[in-house]
Amino acid sequence: MMDRLQDLKERIRRFAEERDWDQYHSPKNLAMALIVETAELVEHFQWLTQEESRSLPPEKRSTVEAELADILIYLVRIADKLDIDLYHAAVEKLQRNADKYPAEKVRGLSKKYTEYP
Amino acid sequence: MMDRLQDLKERIRRFAEERDWDQYHSPKNLAMALIVETAELVEHFQWLTQEESRSLPPEKRSTVEAELADILIYLVRIADKLDIDLYHAAVEKLQRNADKYPAEKVRGLSKKYTEYP
Amino acid sequence: MMDRLQDLKERIRRFAEERDWDQYHSPKNLAMALIVETAELVEHFQWLTQEESRSLPPEKRSTVEAELADILIYLVRIADKLDIDLYHAAVEKLQRNADKYPAEKVRGLSKKYTEYP
Amino acid sequence: MMDRLQDLKERIRRFAEERDWDQYHSPKNLAMALIVETAELVEHFQWLTQEESRSLPPEKRSTVEAELADILIYLVRIADKLDIDLYHAAVEKLQRNADKYPAEKVRGLSKKYTEYP
Repeated sequence: MMDRLQDLKERIRRFAEERDWDQYHSPKNLAMALIVETAELVEHFQWLTQEESRSLPPEKRSTVEAELADILIYLVRIADKLDIDLYHAAVEKLQRNADKYPAEKVRGLSKKYTEYP
Repeated sequence: MMDRLQDLKERIRRFAEERDWDQYHSPKNLAMALIVETAELVEHFQWLTQEESRSLPPEKRSTVEAELADILIYLVRIADKLDIDLYHAAVEKLQRNADKYPAEKVRGLSKKYTEYP
Repeated sequence: MMDRLQDLKERIRRFAEERDWDQYHSPKNLAMALIVETAELVEHFQWLTQEESRSLPPEKRSTVEAELADILIYLVRIADKLDIDLYHAAVEKLQRNADKYPAEKVRGLSKKYTEYP
Repeated sequence: MMDRLQDLKERIRRFAEERDWDQYHSPKNLAMALIVETAELVEHFQWLTQEESRSLPPEKRSTVEAELADILIYLVRIADKLDIDLYHAAVEKLQRNADKYPAEKVRGLSKKYTEYP
């Protein structure tokens, strides 16, 4: 089976080419588009309690799903334009995070570790 | 071969479990973390011209790679907590975008279509 | 007494001129800088409960104060570059919000009104 | 004349009280609302060149004006809830920036100073 991130990359590339939108897809512009989409996700959660955010009603969950899709689309697109392999980048980052936040030392502590959880 | 998005989901899940960080990972909090990471990406591009953003020096490109990794990690995590399949969501969204922005109608036009490119 | 928003506008203008940074201050770039600073604010709250966010320890409150300052600085700057009067814009927007969300109709209801509170 | 930031603070406070929205206005929630509004600003600039962003058509400029208003409203509100004086915070931050980026040293150089311009 083809890798799904690779498959998405190619679908999005084709989508942009067919519309001649490649000219707008500088990494600078794509970073802006990416944060705009991410804020649309944040908007759905801004007035909810944490508890409410864990159990969205079905209609809201569908909208959130579409926002997550938009984020992934722009993320895959900017990685493509910068020729970055997202999967390898994430695996490597997780490894560095594991070194930085050893489980036995940080278990359950979040306050001191503002970057992660 | 295992799908890479699935593989990442499981690695991140394990990472959080080992640190007992699941308690902090409400969708509300994760949406905040996701936009914080996205802004760290935006920061790298804020004073660059579009042209400069297309050809980053190697050191900057490495830092950007790590930012993209952070974004993907939180994106996969929030999708996991909401039980959303990112790949299917993205494929479906691309289909809806293709219907909304027919290639023959929007070719090269971006101004009127502020949401996409 | 001079209006404080006006006073800030002039201080920031002088600051940029002395450094010849005006050339970087296109509204596009300033909008990016503004969201980057706003995300630095968000970062301080991402793992806190709402209750915790209401009573920050003194050191954290100082850092948050500096983040709010950065946001105001860029906000005043972008308004200056676009020749927009922030105060009048805000007063007018509050009036429109008052019409859109009549007190007697929306009292205590936030779920349906995702844009405001 | 009354200070305009003070005047806005009181208008916004009254607006929230009349609607009983104070309960939703934790600093955590307000930080989210603030970044959502900021992203709506960013959206207007995402596909523009820097040059285009400097000379918006009148209709777009009006919409941008309303976005700036929303940002200021939430900024004043979160500062109020944290009991922070925005003007003094900004003046102090400008002073610290002046020390950090001496005019004679950084004139015209932005690349090395990613935080400011």
